[in-house]
Amino acid sequence: MEKWLPSLKTKTPQEGFELAITLSQKGVQITQPSEGIRKKLRPKYSRNADSLIAVTQVIAINFQTVAAANNYWKDNFTIK
Amino acid sequence: MEKWLPSLKTKTPQEGFELAITLSQKGVQITQPSEGIRKKLRPKYSRNADSLIAVTQVIAINFQTVAAANNYWKDNFTIK
Amino acid sequence: MEKWLPSLKTKTPQEGFELAITLSQKGVQITQPSEGIRKKLRPKYSRNADSLIAVTQVIAINFQTVAAANNYWKDNFTIK
Amino acid sequence: MEKWLPSLKTKTPQEGFELAITLSQKGVQITQPSEGIRKKLRPKYSRNADSLIAVTQVIAINFQTVAAANNYWKDNFTIK
Amino acid sequence: MEKWLPSLKTKTPQEGFELAITLSQKGVQITQPSEGIRKKLRPKYSRNADSLIAVTQVIAINFQTVAAANNYWKDNFTIK
Amino acid sequence: MEKWLPSLKTKTPQEGFELAITLSQKGVQITQPSEGIRKKLRPKYSRNADSLIAVTQVIAINFQTVAAANNYWKDNFTIK
Repeated sequence: MEKWLPSLKTKTPQEGFELAITLSQKGVQITQPSEGIRKKLRPKYSRNADSLIAVTQVIAINFQTVAAANNYWKDNFTIK
Repeated sequence: MEKWLPSLKTKTPQEGFELAITLSQKGVQITQPSEGIRKKLRPKYSRNADSLIAVTQVIAINFQTVAAANNYWKDNFTIK
Repeated sequence: MEKWLPSLKTKTPQEGFELAITLSQKGVQITQPSEGIRKKLRPKYSRNADSLIAVTQVIAINFQTVAAANNYWKDNFTIK
Repeated sequence: MEKWLPSLKTKTPQEGFELAITLSQKGVQITQPSEGIRKKLRPKYSRNADSLIAVTQVIAINFQTVAAANNYWKDNFTIK
Repeated sequence: MEKWLPSLKTKTPQEGFELAITLSQKGVQITQPSEGIRKKLRPKYSRNADSLIAVTQVIAINFQTVAAANNYWKDNFTIK
Repeated sequence: MEKWLPSLKTKTPQEGFELAITLSQKGVQITQPSEGIRKKLRPKYSRNADSLIAVTQVIAINFQTVAAANNYWKDNFTIK
């Protein structure tokens, strides 16, 4: 497998949130490796409120992990 | 992407809760970028009890992250 | 918005559980601000076992946050 | 409300698991205070695999909280 | 109730995973004490992908608890 | 049972993510030991968006555990 996750460290909370999204997408990609099938599923679930909420929940769980890994970017607090 | 999450630090628990809501909404927005589609979904899921509960769960998960990032606003405890 | 969450600190675990319920309700209220719609949904979901279990799950997640904020009321342990 | 949660402290992990069940039941009771309705729902959800699994998930989340409150009963480890 | 959970301590991560499964099963057993009903449900949910995934989620949550209780078996790291 | 989980320690976050997938799969395998049935279920759930999202959620929960076990690979941070 190609390298896609060298570190959980990000510079800002926002980049951390984007990493949480990447982690969520990667989980789907590994479970369903066919890009063709994933592309067919996308228009359907992205127009279904409950599916969208479920995706958001996975992102929230992954963001917990990334945020903890970055000590919640607390070192950035003083600079602000 | 525009800057929308400079920090997880908030002054009060209530502002933290509002940030948790923002995080939850942002997850939906990034998964379904079309504002038109999101607007069409809103009246439906916001009148569906199970969808509402699911949204509330995502907020609860994000609030865990924000609360931990703020050390649960414990420093505010003594002032109160 | 009115102030409704001045602190996560509670005197007892039971009050913490009640705060977890408040947090769960607030999530719903903010997502569906119309009291009229919420009142119409209530009789339905409160008689549906799966909806009730889902609500209980949100309470459980929020209770994790409140309990951590109060250091699990461990200081109360010795007094008991 | 009557006192039902004086502490999260339990003597053993098993008692902690039982407390996690109590917390889960209490969440349902507070959301649906009518004992009559709850009694009618019970035979249905307790014979539905997906409902049972959902209940078990709430118990698992509450057990995380109780276990953390008891420092995972680590002090019991040496005695064993 | 008979003693079934003397400790959360296990020798290896794998035994910890097995304990997480036990915890998940116990949650179901306590919610539905009738072995007869549980046996009838089993063939159905164990052939339903979504039910299986839901079971796996409960195991994952319980494994978090068991892993934390064992400090993630970090003491085993050096020996390896 | 054969040994499949000697440690939660991995060299990189990516290997940790792969371990989280293994943990998720193992949960399914233990709940449904028949490889025949699992193989029949796979084409169906892997083409169902909601099932895929649910699998991704289990992976996310397990990744939280693995990441914590590795102290979020923070020791790797300086080398980068």
